[in-house]
Amino acid sequence: MSRQRASAFVPGHVTAFFSAHPAERPAAAGSRGAGVTLTDGVTVRVSAAGGAGEPDALDESGSRTVNGEAGTIGAVEDVLAELGTADVDVAVETELPIGAGFGVSGAAALGAALAANDALDRGRFENDLVRIAHEAEVGRGTGLGDVVAQARGGVPLRLEPGAPAVGELDGIPATGRVEYVTFGELSTEEVLGGDTASLSAAGEDALDRLRADPRLPTMMDAARAFAREADLLVPEVAEAIAAVEESTAEADGDSGGHGAAMAMLGRTVFALGTGLSDAGYDPERCRIDAAGARLVER
Amino acid sequence: MSRQRASAFVPGHVTAFFSAHPAERPAAAGSRGAGVTLTDGVTVRVSAAGGAGEPDALDESGSRTVNGEAGTIGAVEDVLAELGTADVDVAVETELPIGAGFGVSGAAALGAALAANDALDRGRFENDLVRIAHEAEVGRGTGLGDVVAQARGGVPLRLEPGAPAVGELDGIPATGRVEYVTFGELSTEEVLGGDTASLSAAGEDALDRLRADPRLPTMMDAARAFAREADLLVPEVAEAIAAVEESTAEADGDSGGHGAAMAMLGRTVFALGTGLSDAGYDPERCRIDAAGARLVER
Repeated sequence: MSRQRASAFVPGHVTAFFSAHPAERPAAAGSRGAGVTLTDGVTVRVSAAGGAGEPDALDESGSRTVNGEAGTIGAVEDVLAELGTADVDVAVETELPIGAGFGVSGAAALGAALAANDALDRGRFENDLVRIAHEAEVGRGTGLGDVVAQARGGVPLRLEPGAPAVGELDGIPATGRVEYVTFGELSTEEVLGGDTASLSAAGEDALDRLRADPRLPTMMDAARAFAREADLLVPEVAEAIAAVEESTAEADGDSGGHGAAMAMLGRTVFALGTGLSDAGYDPERCRIDAAGARLVER
Repeated sequence: MSRQRASAFVPGHVTAFFSAHPAERPAAAGSRGAGVTLTDGVTVRVSAAGGAGEPDALDESGSRTVNGEAGTIGAVEDVLAELGTADVDVAVETELPIGAGFGVSGAAALGAALAANDALDRGRFENDLVRIAHEAEVGRGTGLGDVVAQARGGVPLRLEPGAPAVGELDGIPATGRVEYVTFGELSTEEVLGGDTASLSAAGEDALDRLRADPRLPTMMDAARAFAREADLLVPEVAEAIAAVEESTAEADGDSGGHGAAMAMLGRTVFALGTGLSDAGYDPERCRIDAAGARLVER
């Protein structure tokens, strides 16, 4: 029985640090690292067009919008093709900036997988849908670890790279506010397409530190060290990190956070607690998302 | 830095069917099967008493309440002992009936693990806390698969038994209403302590059916067949299942559900959608819980 319409919400994900692990098989490719999933995220609405789900309609794409304007996302198209649902109408909506380190493309791919599976009653397991979205994202070169983290929610640690049943996840138990400020885009494809050896060495160091002490202050410390060592820090973000540090030292108090760090890969700074507000920025505010990707009522 | 207080929410879990897999090592023991996690659940509040967290205070238990009255839960005590936090005060609150198939003891154990770890800054990974709660529940004989399901949320499938990194989980992507009616208690310890061979054979059959077709109607069908084959069906529940079936057939419509089934192990009937209301019962109403166990604001 096909429901014909379905919606999914997928949290945004800021990566604190990572190491890149390419592989022949997209399900085995991925990243190790840590990050934070956000209650700001991506909603994907899928509805069946006239002949939706019919095998002979597969060549015809349905309508595609991103925030109300016509637009396609490569990984979303690959997911729909894999599920044999290219003919559905898909609307992607997000309050997150695109290309700024929030994993919007991965979220859109995973949301499309969940919503299309439900709308056209494809009968896939959740892990299978996560794998399909992960493979699409890896195939397009737009991300390596966002999809599995977004499927999980919370503060995910990617201990082994890859899709469900290949990779391995854990998490730091945490709740609380997240603040972020974005200064612009940074090309994930460009960084991941370049030489990632020294970046990955820095990411492995950071993960070792966090494995030895799975606490948020350690994650934020490790994230700052990673950004410096991997030479990814952009000036506006460095300035904001310094401002948060200075304001915390002055206040000599507990902002509920542990300084700020750069979102990989974007010109974005994020803080747990009220660090960016306290430092005089006017950040977006959301929370750690406990649930991870999920179907939602239409 | 110790926060001194923390709260966690853990969803209730009704098991649709299961097979029992005892093992020497508690982390390897568990069950295969499927179930539904509920937005009705258990909240556990932990606060440090005077000398909380000090090694020399470990022998003294803090206060313990269940729904406001003095009371202890064995698995909770084992979790606190394992974390070295027996001296904290613990308040367990739930709207769920106890001993009626909702996994309240497992939820209390997992909630205590999350909250005690946070309140006293024990710095454990999430998987580690789930393992500790799972081992406590298994050790007490009060459950086999609730804890790992409750940690995950949604509609969890336990494909392989055991704690994280030993067992294997997947899920059926779903959202929606859940209704339930409880007619009384059923002793989990008694059923699990008896001969579980034919029960487990029925549970494996049910899981095979669901693996071949991971859809909610199939899960509910398989659950009904399991209750019959395992000879666990109690008269009040059988009557309610029949009433829902009859009312659905009469309405010839879609109640958003797929009949009703028995919650394992309790004198409880549950339905997805509005099946029990439609059949004239006055059920408790909640929803599928998307998030699984999580820290919450105090």
